Amino acid sequence: MGYFTKRYHPPGTSPGTLQGSGEAGLFPLKLYLTDYTNTEFTEHDLATPEECRGYLDRDSITWIHVQGDAEAQTLRELGALFGLHPLALEDVINSGQRPKADDYAEQLFVVLAHPVTAAESPDVNIAQLSLFVGKRFVVSFHPGKDDPFGPVRRRLREHTGRIRERGADYLLYALIDLVVDEGFPVLEMLGEAIEDLEEEMLDRPGPDALHRLHNLRRTMLVVRRMLWPQREVLNSLVRDPSGIIGDENHVYYRDCYDHTIQIMDLVETYRDMITGLLDVYLSSVSYRLNEIMRILTIIATIFIPLTFIVGVYGMNFVNPDSPWAMPELRWYFGYPLVWLLMLAVFGGMLVYFRRKRWL
Amino acid sequence: MGYFTKRYHPPGTSPGTLQGSGEAGLFPLKLYLTDYTNTEFTEHDLATPEECRGYLDRDSITWIHVQGDAEAQTLRELGALFGLHPLALEDVINSGQRPKADDYAEQLFVVLAHPVTAAESPDVNIAQLSLFVGKRFVVSFHPGKDDPFGPVRRRLREHTGRIRERGADYLLYALIDLVVDEGFPVLEMLGEAIEDLEEEMLDRPGPDALHRLHNLRRTMLVVRRMLWPQREVLNSLVRDPSGIIGDENHVYYRDCYDHTIQIMDLVETYRDMITGLLDVYLSSVSYRLNEIMRILTIIATIFIPLTFIVGVYGMNFVNPDSPWAMPELRWYFGYPLVWLLMLAVFGGMLVYFRRKRWL
Amino acid sequence: MGYFTKRYHPPGTSPGTLQGSGEAGLFPLKLYLTDYTNTEFTEHDLATPEECRGYLDRDSITWIHVQGDAEAQTLRELGALFGLHPLALEDVINSGQRPKADDYAEQLFVVLAHPVTAAESPDVNIAQLSLFVGKRFVVSFHPGKDDPFGPVRRRLREHTGRIRERGADYLLYALIDLVVDEGFPVLEMLGEAIEDLEEEMLDRPGPDALHRLHNLRRTMLVVRRMLWPQREVLNSLVRDPSGIIGDENHVYYRDCYDHTIQIMDLVETYRDMITGLLDVYLSSVSYRLNEIMRILTIIATIFIPLTFIVGVYGMNFVNPDSPWAMPELRWYFGYPLVWLLMLAVFGGMLVYFRRKRWL
Amino acid sequence: MGYFTKRYHPPGTSPGTLQGSGEAGLFPLKLYLTDYTNTEFTEHDLATPEECRGYLDRDSITWIHVQGDAEAQTLRELGALFGLHPLALEDVINSGQRPKADDYAEQLFVVLAHPVTAAESPDVNIAQLSLFVGKRFVVSFHPGKDDPFGPVRRRLREHTGRIRERGADYLLYALIDLVVDEGFPVLEMLGEAIEDLEEEMLDRPGPDALHRLHNLRRTMLVVRRMLWPQREVLNSLVRDPSGIIGDENHVYYRDCYDHTIQIMDLVETYRDMITGLLDVYLSSVSYRLNEIMRILTIIATIFIPLTFIVGVYGMNFVNPDSPWAMPELRWYFGYPLVWLLMLAVFGGMLVYFRRKRWL
Amino acid sequence: MGYFTKRYHPPGTSPGTLQGSGEAGLFPLKLYLTDYTNTEFTEHDLATPEECRGYLDRDSITWIHVQGDAEAQTLRELGALFGLHPLALEDVINSGQRPKADDYAEQLFVVLAHPVTAAESPDVNIAQLSLFVGKRFVVSFHPGKDDPFGPVRRRLREHTGRIRERGADYLLYALIDLVVDEGFPVLEMLGEAIEDLEEEMLDRPGPDALHRLHNLRRTMLVVRRMLWPQREVLNSLVRDPSGIIGDENHVYYRDCYDHTIQIMDLVETYRDMITGLLDVYLSSVSYRLNEIMRILTIIATIFIPLTFIVGVYGMNFVNPDSPWAMPELRWYFGYPLVWLLMLAVFGGMLVYFRRKRWL
Repeated sequence: MGYFTKRYHPPGTSPGTLQGSGEAGLFPLKLYLTDYTNTEFTEHDLATPEECRGYLDRDSITWIHVQGDAEAQTLRELGALFGLHPLALEDVINSGQRPKADDYAEQLFVVLAHPVTAAESPDVNIAQLSLFVGKRFVVSFHPGKDDPFGPVRRRLREHTGRIRERGADYLLYALIDLVVDEGFPVLEMLGEAIEDLEEEMLDRPGPDALHRLHNLRRTMLVVRRMLWPQREVLNSLVRDPSGIIGDENHVYYRDCYDHTIQIMDLVETYRDMITGLLDVYLSSVSYRLNEIMRILTIIATIFIPLTFIVGVYGMNFVNPDSPWAMPELRWYFGYPLVWLLMLAVFGGMLVYFRRKRWL
Repeated sequence: MGYFTKRYHPPGTSPGTLQGSGEAGLFPLKLYLTDYTNTEFTEHDLATPEECRGYLDRDSITWIHVQGDAEAQTLRELGALFGLHPLALEDVINSGQRPKADDYAEQLFVVLAHPVTAAESPDVNIAQLSLFVGKRFVVSFHPGKDDPFGPVRRRLREHTGRIRERGADYLLYALIDLVVDEGFPVLEMLGEAIEDLEEEMLDRPGPDALHRLHNLRRTMLVVRRMLWPQREVLNSLVRDPSGIIGDENHVYYRDCYDHTIQIMDLVETYRDMITGLLDVYLSSVSYRLNEIMRILTIIATIFIPLTFIVGVYGMNFVNPDSPWAMPELRWYFGYPLVWLLMLAVFGGMLVYFRRKRWL
Repeated sequence: MGYFTKRYHPPGTSPGTLQGSGEAGLFPLKLYLTDYTNTEFTEHDLATPEECRGYLDRDSITWIHVQGDAEAQTLRELGALFGLHPLALEDVINSGQRPKADDYAEQLFVVLAHPVTAAESPDVNIAQLSLFVGKRFVVSFHPGKDDPFGPVRRRLREHTGRIRERGADYLLYALIDLVVDEGFPVLEMLGEAIEDLEEEMLDRPGPDALHRLHNLRRTMLVVRRMLWPQREVLNSLVRDPSGIIGDENHVYYRDCYDHTIQIMDLVETYRDMITGLLDVYLSSVSYRLNEIMRILTIIATIFIPLTFIVGVYGMNFVNPDSPWAMPELRWYFGYPLVWLLMLAVFGGMLVYFRRKRWL
Repeated sequence: MGYFTKRYHPPGTSPGTLQGSGEAGLFPLKLYLTDYTNTEFTEHDLATPEECRGYLDRDSITWIHVQGDAEAQTLRELGALFGLHPLALEDVINSGQRPKADDYAEQLFVVLAHPVTAAESPDVNIAQLSLFVGKRFVVSFHPGKDDPFGPVRRRLREHTGRIRERGADYLLYALIDLVVDEGFPVLEMLGEAIEDLEEEMLDRPGPDALHRLHNLRRTMLVVRRMLWPQREVLNSLVRDPSGIIGDENHVYYRDCYDHTIQIMDLVETYRDMITGLLDVYLSSVSYRLNEIMRILTIIATIFIPLTFIVGVYGMNFVNPDSPWAMPELRWYFGYPLVWLLMLAVFGGMLVYFRRKRWL
Repeated sequence: MGYFTKRYHPPGTSPGTLQGSGEAGLFPLKLYLTDYTNTEFTEHDLATPEECRGYLDRDSITWIHVQGDAEAQTLRELGALFGLHPLALEDVINSGQRPKADDYAEQLFVVLAHPVTAAESPDVNIAQLSLFVGKRFVVSFHPGKDDPFGPVRRRLREHTGRIRERGADYLLYALIDLVVDEGFPVLEMLGEAIEDLEEEMLDRPGPDALHRLHNLRRTMLVVRRMLWPQREVLNSLVRDPSGIIGDENHVYYRDCYDHTIQIMDLVETYRDMITGLLDVYLSSVSYRLNEIMRILTIIATIFIPLTFIVGVYGMNFVNPDSPWAMPELRWYFGYPLVWLLMLAVFGGMLVYFRRKRWL
């Protein structure tokens, strides 16, 4: 994932322009319709948005979920059916939006960030979830291949809890809650990755660990950038409901807001931990270098003078007439005396180093 | 203790679902009942929540304390008896919550973090204390083996101070005050650990001290994450009492709020101190390396030229016909002259190093 | 681009003094007039500001765009024609202003920063865009050679969207939106530059990469300083419209405000990333140094004692009468024994280093 | 001074418990009474708090100053005489409080931090000053041996300025002003300590300077922690006087508030300066290491090849039958040629190093 | 300039005491009187404050400027003439005040910081400008030798702009504007100093550059500390004019406030840049060390084994009876074979280093 993940129209484009990326979507687009009252429940796939027109005037809650990369035509038809604002539809196409909750009279447009982990690695992808909610409908957009809302649809189908008895605002809550809570397994996985890395850093710091540390930091940066505004979004939904969200559901939104705070707390702790790990890494590396240099110093400073001494007696001053021409070489105990000298130098150095606490 | 300490239900679970961790609790669950008025006092253990029903309608203050890992069944029964909100009960099960004070009409739900130190080491564990308080009752939940509320129960039993004359809100204060004040011995212990480490860092920096520094920093991070919101909780209890907390007790809550601020001040100071210690460590290590390198340089740069000189006169140029074949070897004073040369080089270097202030 | 980019009059100059930089402008000054109603559209170049007087009293929207370094005379004439405040006109001349929106009764004066990238390099220049807007007119100033507002003029000419049906406030929005959105391609380019640099830093850290890192950081600093207040400007336009901006256009300004937030989010992420890159750089360099030192240590500490040994047996103790004069040299197996000794030292060291995990 | 300087009761103690530290105070407790009106003035020492009862009902301002470690009994008696709140009295005993101003109806309880320097060293101790003020009395507590309020008592005695004409709130101001202004000489002394250290750091960085830097940083941390809330206290006294502080004295409290801001400005500047000094230290040390390594490199890399060359001609290949057995040794100009070779290597290296700008 | 630049009275001094520093002022004190209406203009020097009494009751605007270190007597006389508050006069004497705007009923007391650069060096001095303003008068105090207000006096004398038509509040604006704008040339000079340093840091990092970097950082710290509150002062003058500043002048104060923001933006950018420069410095130094170590390693690791080999054949094993006594020395091709061996070792190492990418 690159750093710049936002799609945008060329500057100067007319606002509300719906203009696809031009590429064919990676995955075929799917439209699921779910329509329910307390007593009835219908769900089926739609071929075109038009097919849902029959459900709109009824007294039921209608939920259209669009899975995959929505192209301009579908958006235009849905916009016409539900009266969605062109600026909001433009934000669905120009994915990579910051989470936000915009209030268009009679409607709420919510953008959330859905963190998705790859199977094995600590990489995290962020998918943009876009939600329109009115008095009696929810329209949701999620790119990618797999529909994340299976559990909510099952609760609707099986009439679990009070979800069928409440309105579109409660359905919105159920969808948001699911997406927010997806943050917990992601952070659990990241927490374990940090703990693994910590152990490695203290044990055997190396360029591989450094590389992984950098990737983790990068991941945390992206996660933080996308999840931080989520907190604000939930806060604005709790406080300023614009009439769409009923008072009886405030307690649920508050609970969900709590979860976003817990997630941000964890993200901040991880960030601090990762910063701390770099310090640990640098300190470890620096200490090891120090240790190695100490040994080198000691071995070198011991042998350099000794080597000098043996070099002296390897000189070839040979004037047989001169008593000054290396008489030591001809002493009876010359050789053992040199060894004694060298042992004395060796011992003296050991004592010196020990007194300096280098050994 | 890992970084991710939050329990959570699978995303998409219906809100208010009470679903235990599945594992049998580590410690057997205990329920203590304490019931008192200014004149009467009863306390005994309960086998099931049902047994306390007789005390509820009376005019006394009823305090149920649940010690240990509460399982779903007990929570459901207590919820039914006292009318506790399912979302709050879910937070009791999904431990690792952030401290908070939630206002459910007629009731207050307070979550606090209880810092507990292990006997010998500077490790700190955080236990989640959950408190429900109504007009005439308090229900408290504390995991772990030991009941921390002995001192409060003794004050109730022995009628110390005004605790028996006041309502459930004062009992709540007494419990919160105890848990907040437990932070002082914990921070005292951590302060001593930092001072010990500081001494070691300046004296003999090593990987062991670095390891302990990292652990302390990690502990401070966790402590800070859990105690920081505690301040906010007390602040909200002081300011926005939702009718549960009587005006006459505000001064006590304010005093307790002061303590949370003092604790956060200490935590922040410790954090800065720990950051400072890493700098001290790195500076010490770097200075020592510098010192060692200096000695190596001096010894090496003194002996390297000397060794070169003796190497020169160890060469075997032996052409007896050439006056150029190392005539020095045959000079009368050749050997002493070499020594003089070497002493001159040695002395010159010492002077040079001293002028450079390397010695 | 230097760090100090602000033009200013000598301290103590009378406020509202219009005094050009004295130098002839780099590019010839151009004045474009665009005048339109829903049904009519006129555009042509102006030789002097006076020529536009005929359009002012009409019921149309008049847009004067001044491209290039405006000198004092033109500003004075435009000021007289549209009643522009001298303090605001002074800010047009003293370019390098911080983005702001000042409310002069009946008029709004908006300063924006227009980021422009050079063709190939990740350098960014910031041009100051100054905008005056009244009920029925817009006067815009942009230095530099090329008019950036081609796309808006085309939309006006071709009657795209609702731009011709709305007032001067919508035209202002269209101009601001274009300039704000120019930030996206600039940030996309910078994001790619960071990713390239990241790869280089991990792969082959060198002074060249460090130099580029420093330039990127400097660019981000300048970009941040100029774009950060842009957010505030849009926010003030959304909230406090001073009557110039009609209610029906608030939704557009809000959309534009969203874009400024997204841009700042990216800028902050990049800043963190660049800080992270420096750590990566330092860690890489420090690790490499460590590796090299290790190899040096091992080779040196292995050969230094061996060289000492061969030095010993290069000594010339030759007293034929002494049994102490290096008898080893005359042993039958002397030479192979020395080799054995050296192999033993060599092997012992390898074992020692491996146990220390230095190898 | 340790990091944890707060006294506290065991968690779970009843609030308002007055329980001394158990140890006998270091200094004998002293009680000074000062009682004055515009025309009268009395001062004498008290043996017990009871002795001041006669002054309470009169129309004069009564100031009781308690110097030394107040034990529980004295506090209880003073509490009974002046109606002081037990929670506030508890804060007097549990010293190490954060500066604060608590409003108990009819009374104000103010805690301030009094910075005291030791004679010679840049160590700073913080003494807790506790002040109770009512309509017609002030009760002040200061631990330690010496009464800091001599100058105020002299102004009262000598009727300097308007102090005798005004109420207890002005006396409170005079006491607070004195304690706040004591910060200036302390900061002046610390500023000089930093300047001295700065000079030493740039001149001769060593472990001693590092040690002093660490101590200064630690002192600044403690000073900052205690003086920062002082600002808030003065601010709350300026704004929210709870009726105790008369309007005519607001201008004096504002002046005092200004001083707390100036002190915090200095504290923050010093903190930044100390951080900067560590960078200077590390940079100096690192630069010096670099310099030393450069010299080592040059000397070593020059002599290592030369030593190799002389080693070559120290070999003993002596087969007299082989023309390949080191014929150079027998050349007529062999020895001078070797010297020429070595000079060439030496010169070549000098040129190489100069071109690399290492020399 | 030291870090502690504040003058203060001994703690406990009565508030409003005017007590000079005791030393004779460096420069002789000068008093300038300027008195004007739209039609009249008078200016002359004053020997004593008393001389201006004649101008006070008239309908003109009277401006007294005191240049130099004001001693207590002059202040007392001016205080009596214009009714200035003793606390404010004390702040004039105790120079080194933080910029502020205090509202004394009927009067405004403004303190500003006037940055002054020395001629050649990037050192900045801060002079305290004190201003009293009432309905019809301004009294200004500026220490130092040179009067900075020449340009304003010239505008008054020459009737430039509207300055003569407006009141004392506009004169105040003109003085403040001049002092604030003096920040631009100072910052321009600092910006150039940073750019110069940057070039030097990348090119030839050394202790001299480090020293200058430290001085620049120190200068920025002082500049920031004094200019930061200036912003607040202007903001308070824009918003809360206390009746002294007329509505028609708000637009001018807002313009001046804009300038303080631009100045702070630059100060913050410079601070970041200076921090960045230290990183550049450390990275450069660390990279250079790395480079030098690499060369050392390569030369040393190549020659150490070679020197060992030649050492081997310099041994004197001479037992003529033993076939084991260094038979190589007597081989026909012994010497060339050793050269071949050494070339092989040399080549092998080059290949190894190249593969490791160390060469």
